[in-house]
Amino acid sequence: MNLSDTFLHPDRLLPTEVPVLKMARELYEGVTDLPIISPHGHTLPQWFANNQPMGDAADLFLTPDHYVLRMLFSHGVSYEDLGVPRSDGKRGASGKAAWGIFANNYHRFLGTPSRLWIDHSMNWAFGIEAPLAPHNADEYFELITSRLQEDDCRPLALLDKAGVDYIATTEFALDPLSHHAELKQSGLSSRITTTYRPDDITDPDHADFQSNIRAVGELTNQDIAGWDGLIEAHRIRRSFFRQHGASATDHGVPSARTVDLPNAAKQDLLTRILCGDQRPDDSELFRAQMLTEMAGLSCEDGMVMQIHAGSRRNTDPRLVKNFGTNLGADIPTPVDPVAGLEPMLQRYGFVENFRVLFFGLDETVYTRELAPLAGYWPALRLGPPWWFHDSPRGIARYLDGMVETAGFHNLAGFNDDTRALLSIPARHDVWRRCVCSFLAHMVTGKTLGKLDASEIAHWLCLDAAKDAYRIG
Amino acid sequence: MNLSDTFLHPDRLLPTEVPVLKMARELYEGVTDLPIISPHGHTLPQWFANNQPMGDAADLFLTPDHYVLRMLFSHGVSYEDLGVPRSDGKRGASGKAAWGIFANNYHRFLGTPSRLWIDHSMNWAFGIEAPLAPHNADEYFELITSRLQEDDCRPLALLDKAGVDYIATTEFALDPLSHHAELKQSGLSSRITTTYRPDDITDPDHADFQSNIRAVGELTNQDIAGWDGLIEAHRIRRSFFRQHGASATDHGVPSARTVDLPNAAKQDLLTRILCGDQRPDDSELFRAQMLTEMAGLSCEDGMVMQIHAGSRRNTDPRLVKNFGTNLGADIPTPVDPVAGLEPMLQRYGFVENFRVLFFGLDETVYTRELAPLAGYWPALRLGPPWWFHDSPRGIARYLDGMVETAGFHNLAGFNDDTRALLSIPARHDVWRRCVCSFLAHMVTGKTLGKLDASEIAHWLCLDAAKDAYRIG
Amino acid sequence: MNLSDTFLHPDRLLPTEVPVLKMARELYEGVTDLPIISPHGHTLPQWFANNQPMGDAADLFLTPDHYVLRMLFSHGVSYEDLGVPRSDGKRGASGKAAWGIFANNYHRFLGTPSRLWIDHSMNWAFGIEAPLAPHNADEYFELITSRLQEDDCRPLALLDKAGVDYIATTEFALDPLSHHAELKQSGLSSRITTTYRPDDITDPDHADFQSNIRAVGELTNQDIAGWDGLIEAHRIRRSFFRQHGASATDHGVPSARTVDLPNAAKQDLLTRILCGDQRPDDSELFRAQMLTEMAGLSCEDGMVMQIHAGSRRNTDPRLVKNFGTNLGADIPTPVDPVAGLEPMLQRYGFVENFRVLFFGLDETVYTRELAPLAGYWPALRLGPPWWFHDSPRGIARYLDGMVETAGFHNLAGFNDDTRALLSIPARHDVWRRCVCSFLAHMVTGKTLGKLDASEIAHWLCLDAAKDAYRIG
Repeated sequence: MNLSDTFLHPDRLLPTEVPVLKMARELYEGVTDLPIISPHGHTLPQWFANNQPMGDAADLFLTPDHYVLRMLFSHGVSYEDLGVPRSDGKRGASGKAAWGIFANNYHRFLGTPSRLWIDHSMNWAFGIEAPLAPHNADEYFELITSRLQEDDCRPLALLDKAGVDYIATTEFALDPLSHHAELKQSGLSSRITTTYRPDDITDPDHADFQSNIRAVGELTNQDIAGWDGLIEAHRIRRSFFRQHGASATDHGVPSARTVDLPNAAKQDLLTRILCGDQRPDDSELFRAQMLTEMAGLSCEDGMVMQIHAGSRRNTDPRLVKNFGTNLGADIPTPVDPVAGLEPMLQRYGFVENFRVLFFGLDETVYTRELAPLAGYWPALRLGPPWWFHDSPRGIARYLDGMVETAGFHNLAGFNDDTRALLSIPARHDVWRRCVCSFLAHMVTGKTLGKLDASEIAHWLCLDAAKDAYRIG
Repeated sequence: MNLSDTFLHPDRLLPTEVPVLKMARELYEGVTDLPIISPHGHTLPQWFANNQPMGDAADLFLTPDHYVLRMLFSHGVSYEDLGVPRSDGKRGASGKAAWGIFANNYHRFLGTPSRLWIDHSMNWAFGIEAPLAPHNADEYFELITSRLQEDDCRPLALLDKAGVDYIATTEFALDPLSHHAELKQSGLSSRITTTYRPDDITDPDHADFQSNIRAVGELTNQDIAGWDGLIEAHRIRRSFFRQHGASATDHGVPSARTVDLPNAAKQDLLTRILCGDQRPDDSELFRAQMLTEMAGLSCEDGMVMQIHAGSRRNTDPRLVKNFGTNLGADIPTPVDPVAGLEPMLQRYGFVENFRVLFFGLDETVYTRELAPLAGYWPALRLGPPWWFHDSPRGIARYLDGMVETAGFHNLAGFNDDTRALLSIPARHDVWRRCVCSFLAHMVTGKTLGKLDASEIAHWLCLDAAKDAYRIG
Repeated sequence: MNLSDTFLHPDRLLPTEVPVLKMARELYEGVTDLPIISPHGHTLPQWFANNQPMGDAADLFLTPDHYVLRMLFSHGVSYEDLGVPRSDGKRGASGKAAWGIFANNYHRFLGTPSRLWIDHSMNWAFGIEAPLAPHNADEYFELITSRLQEDDCRPLALLDKAGVDYIATTEFALDPLSHHAELKQSGLSSRITTTYRPDDITDPDHADFQSNIRAVGELTNQDIAGWDGLIEAHRIRRSFFRQHGASATDHGVPSARTVDLPNAAKQDLLTRILCGDQRPDDSELFRAQMLTEMAGLSCEDGMVMQIHAGSRRNTDPRLVKNFGTNLGADIPTPVDPVAGLEPMLQRYGFVENFRVLFFGLDETVYTRELAPLAGYWPALRLGPPWWFHDSPRGIARYLDGMVETAGFHNLAGFNDDTRALLSIPARHDVWRRCVCSFLAHMVTGKTLGKLDASEIAHWLCLDAAKDAYRIG
């Protein structure tokens, strides 16, 4: 038996016990060819608008993938040697040299979802049939790099090949959405759309907050020094995003805190922040109030609100300084959804038009807080396991913790949340396999009928996401 | 295969692998017919004292079951439409109409313990052999409603049929225990008893605290403005409850905090609270001190102390205002038993006569705090998984987390903690199946002998509860 | 079937499903005879330096084992009756009487790792083939006690028999290391070595801190009233420990907090502490700064830094007063590694020569903080499951939580951390069995190749520890 014995084995991630495996296979066969709905992610709209070749193998698999970069760094490889562009413009190693390091260290990824995703991606997109290793590093680099120049490997062709029926990118509030405008021109805006992520104007700790908030005032012709003007500016930008196809907003926040302040207190808070007269808690307070405001606007315009809470960003200042953000030094922290979301939910949690999806990185709140909250509030649905927890064991823990208290119908299905275009089918496939394994255990354990299991598999692998995001 | 293929399958919740299943079946056969001891719950004493028919199907399965109401609410059904009586006296939908909504949404409960309990309850009490569904909703409603009028479906007959040898209700400190007095008259007080739950006079945040505490002073002829008088009042009420069969007290607290203040500080605290001169932390401090006082009284009178800690009550003020409390908007919060219980345990944790059972909703403390505490302090035993965690996976996580550090003999067995009379045998059955599955895995995994497993199954399914509550 | 049916069954702790079991057995056969590396523990150096008989059965299995004492105490047995020496010099029960109590209560340990370890220890060292029980208590006591007098049961012979190639004890900073000096004389210092654990001079809450810190100043001829002198004193003691073979330091701290203060603030802090002018947070602050200092010294001298964080020590003051410390009343508490370790990691986490191993008792940080941190910082590796979590289920949770995000190569392998010499092979065996079970599930679940699994088993059972501790 050699290394490649298990390379993309058709039964991977399914149960091993024969009757359970058979049931899981049957369920999986029912969902494996479903189209992919990717309602939240970080692919770039210019890929689809320009539809140009995507560079070399390292540009595709290495430099944009923070999961990969961080793991290699943890084993003593520098970001320079991985070819990550420096903030000062100096480029480090060549793609090919970086790729060699990646191949030499590919065993570091054993047991991680990154390896599952990359194996799968290399196979479906490039027909590769054995894992990356030192002896095939150059061969694979050349193969992938040359295939990427061909028409069937351009971004839109890849979406077709992957069966992606719908994909949303994520843009900040000030984004002109020019690529999405082009996509609209091309008749692609119902398939490739955007998401309103106003962190650039809701987070006073954002480096460019002050200039951003002035810019949004000018862009919308609102006096953002007044609270009502600020909210009106959001209302206008949300409308602009909806015109480009957006059905959802997204909010990345360090904590799950919301507040619902009286009007005068809101205005005072805004004034302090704009005048540089901030108190220690003001940034947190502003973010907390803005979440409630966004919920209020969602009640008006029906945009689905997403909250991604609990990442401690930029924990290595050297990395930020030399290379930038989102490169692997963001670490989860505890969140407190039960107290945190209370003001927002008490205000809007029962409004028929309101829907909020919560994503967290703190698994301890699954059974204690999130499932109980989602099993009560009509507006709340539970986002799928996020980031480090978007993994076979993470999915198992998520289903183990959520389903008994929240049921299946308060879950928002799956979304891949990825920057790595090729990993999209791989990630959905891992989710589908793990869901079918979970359900197969229930069927053989006699706590779920086979027909119910089949319907729920379909729900979790497709319908739940469409329903949660009000798509199509 | 159709929906009802798995309806109450005899092997439900048991392992699927054949040798493990056989062992689990064998263990389960040894405990399935054991009598039921229900030492903690929220059934109503008037049901047993009056022994009248219990209303219609909705009165039984729907309106009193906060698990069911909350889930339906989370899917957009209003409490009005579920027929829950409003605080202003207006009744919403009829039982039959509400039942129809319940049936239409019964698939929402797939994967939840509610469905296991309700399927089981409908079957054992009414002979129903397929799950509730839209097409049988009316039929089941009529069947259940008419059966409920028959003598063999009255509360006492149901206790007999379910094999309940012992059941404790829960009453507040001021309760006159008149129903229990009737039960005593009928010679039923050793089978149906009460529990002293003095939250009405230990929690200054209770709406009627001030009048309650004056009332208990008058009732016991004590000066409750003095600390010693207050404690004496408790002593008298505890004795009154014991005369009505109580062997235990129960304390519902938001946190696990206890304190052991000097006498003067206790008196000052009481005085501030009674005079409306409360400081921000005083309510919490008073509850914390009262836990320690209750522990001291337990040392005197041998009543078993129960602490149910960590529920954030009434998180939806609209629900409370319109319909009342305990209807589904209570959400778990983190607890801190290691620091919280320390003052009480340092004072009384080694006293031979003292026994305290701790119940929490924060599973993160299982391995970190609760099992280590119970594996040290003689007085402390671990209550079974509570509320949302009284579920197959919740039980699995509980046993997984507790047993290695606390052993089996520091566990308090099972109690159902239910308001739903018919769910009692269903809940005990789930516990028994899950316990036998856990033990069967240990036997086949060669870490527990079969004879030991059989003894431990008996312990966890009957003896542990009797021993923990000093029954019989 | 009787009690002894499962006594040390060759397949214990391995999976039950046949194909998975076969794979696990095959992996286990590949690691079962590997030598034992024990790079962290609490055996006593005098045992090896003097190599004298180890007393009676109770001296070996009962009085030094806090896991055993605490469990028996939780069931109402006093430390006196267990023969634990009192602080006032009075000895309680005889070894034989205590042993009888132990045997009568041996069923209390069903399901706990203590029973696995003790069964295993009694078998490999004394050939015992059935579990301790009331009927064999005297026989076993005599057998063990008399065998202990024989040459092949002296400490060094036991190390040989157990296949221990390397073992590190742990000594405080002021320790003269005289036993290690003797071991060096005997040519044993590369096999039996020490660890620098300066808690006696880094923790201002230590009872003898003030005299200890003066003592280390005299011993090293440094002015410890100045910050530089204090650090130099550490530098000198670390060098002294290295001369006696130490490759690592160890730090027991209540929290994971580190700080990186400016020089003036460090000096002010030290001055306040030495002058008895301490502020409430100063002890914590001093420990936090000393961790960062120790990291800095590790960068210089290459000693591997171990942090054991999150034990609340001495939670029963009666026990401490009457019998002393480390006897079972230490309880885990939450830790906050992501914020806590940040100052130290930002300062030194990328330094090539620096390595820090983190051990915690708070399993909630496995997936949320520890695995993400170790998957980024080059210096950080994850210590094996510690204390209560060094158990079959604890190991399973550890691997489940850590591997997907940190990979296998950021784990530090196993160490037994034990005071119980005979339990060393038993503990390593449990780890090896559980690791092989975990890997066997991955192989049969088609997510890991067999060859990879075999290499990783070898890594986790031997090489990882050697590599983490930079041993030979």
